[in-house]
Amino acid sequence: MSDVGFIGLGVMGKPMAANLIQGGHTLYLHSRSGVPEALTAAGGIACASPREVAERAEAVITMLPDTPDVERVLFGSPGVAEGLTAGKLVVDMSSISPTATRAFAERIERLDCEYVDAPVSGGAIGARDGSLTIMVGAREAAFARAGPLLALMGKNITHLGEHGAGQTCKVANQIIVALAIEAVAEALVFVSKAGVDPAKVRQALLGGFASSRILEVHGERMLRRSFEPGFRIELHQKDLALALASARELGVALPGTALAQELFNACRARGGASWDHSALVRALEILGDHSLGK
Amino acid sequence: MSDVGFIGLGVMGKPMAANLIQGGHTLYLHSRSGVPEALTAAGGIACASPREVAERAEAVITMLPDTPDVERVLFGSPGVAEGLTAGKLVVDMSSISPTATRAFAERIERLDCEYVDAPVSGGAIGARDGSLTIMVGAREAAFARAGPLLALMGKNITHLGEHGAGQTCKVANQIIVALAIEAVAEALVFVSKAGVDPAKVRQALLGGFASSRILEVHGERMLRRSFEPGFRIELHQKDLALALASARELGVALPGTALAQELFNACRARGGASWDHSALVRALEILGDHSLGK
Repeated sequence: MSDVGFIGLGVMGKPMAANLIQGGHTLYLHSRSGVPEALTAAGGIACASPREVAERAEAVITMLPDTPDVERVLFGSPGVAEGLTAGKLVVDMSSISPTATRAFAERIERLDCEYVDAPVSGGAIGARDGSLTIMVGAREAAFARAGPLLALMGKNITHLGEHGAGQTCKVANQIIVALAIEAVAEALVFVSKAGVDPAKVRQALLGGFASSRILEVHGERMLRRSFEPGFRIELHQKDLALALASARELGVALPGTALAQELFNACRARGGASWDHSALVRALEILGDHSLGK
Repeated sequence: MSDVGFIGLGVMGKPMAANLIQGGHTLYLHSRSGVPEALTAAGGIACASPREVAERAEAVITMLPDTPDVERVLFGSPGVAEGLTAGKLVVDMSSISPTATRAFAERIERLDCEYVDAPVSGGAIGARDGSLTIMVGAREAAFARAGPLLALMGKNITHLGEHGAGQTCKVANQIIVALAIEAVAEALVFVSKAGVDPAKVRQALLGGFASSRILEVHGERMLRRSFEPGFRIELHQKDLALALASARELGVALPGTALAQELFNACRARGGASWDHSALVRALEILGDHSLGK
């Protein structure tokens, strides 16, 4: 497979597409906000629509903000489905609804094409370095076919099950990250208000059972008051909304996730939709009338 | 300093005292439930009371379940305070109230002795291997004096500030651990109910931002349904009660901690006071009428 389509060239999509070009593939590119110069300069070919991408490429990758965006790009007009012919492969790497994903997969398979959901974790740095964690839902054959492409973008690639399983795993990832941020935020605000240096506490805890990537990375952001994204609160809220909606459908209670979502709401009340998600600490600072900042 | 007292020889205290004997110290030992044979066989000297320990040793270490136990051992009769003479050192390694700790330190200092709070993290395995994380609150001179003893029991030893700062840091540790357990529990119950294998999800997430010691260790316990302590829910509830009481005194809101405490209550409602704290997952399983177990 050398002709690959890529639709959605934002903070994540652009470096991911660059790694596919670097890996020797011919890339057919489309993005609502235009194709970045850097990608065409590297040999990528700009296409006028998702349909054109699907017509020219053998595999089409999408990397879009939310479920409605994926639906529009795949099934709108001029969309991917209009350009597909039998035997092609669609790989959605966006983080979207597991339920919608199963429906999209069914519609793509009715065109005698294959569908893979492969959302990622690891952020812009992971995208640039080709070190993303990739969570895959797909039939075995489709997973095998997508494998070499995914290997150019990520390192920790896991096949979790059938259609939607990748998205379900990504939702779990976002639940854990949100609650881990809240855990670190509660702990640091608590010790600071008790008169103990939160930077020393973070350092002491990094060696023990409280240690996590979030304590390391997001704990440091909280202490530096560095709330440039990173990962925007509004995007994390979209993911937690997926978690809570799916939980309602499935009949499972996620009380901690619901609480984290409400604390993000409090951040948005202060204009924080675009703050990094580590700024959840600000909601606790407001509640306790106390800031970690000097 | 070669004459060291050790009071409280339970799951944690016994291996910690053994490491001090191993390190060349003469140990004066007392425990309400008797001194273990293994320690006297190794050369430790059993004493009839906390007072006798304080009379014979230069430094007295306490490792007890809760604040009232420490108060009784230090200030009851025949207690440590009755046996102390000027210049001796008291090191409390229990996990107890930061506020009570400051009061205890003041009373010990009035006897011209020094006080160190040095609670630990790392469990029975860390105690055995001498690899505990130790969080210290003390004056500089007392910290320097206790240092060589602590180094025989732990590896990651941090001086966080004045009296009580070690206990405050330990409370922060317990907040993070409780919320991390809840995070992993919500994520695994969610994916399991969605029909995705939670063991595969844990594996996939260990590489990314959701990774933590809790996902690794406690996530595995949840999947194996191995709820032998470990660390008992009733002990974690004691620590969260300290967190919530201190938060009330200080004026800081810990909504996630309060929620975790309530989920532990739900476990106790099913007889789970002595389950390992990873069994918090059972509260979510009950709420969702679904078990991770096969």
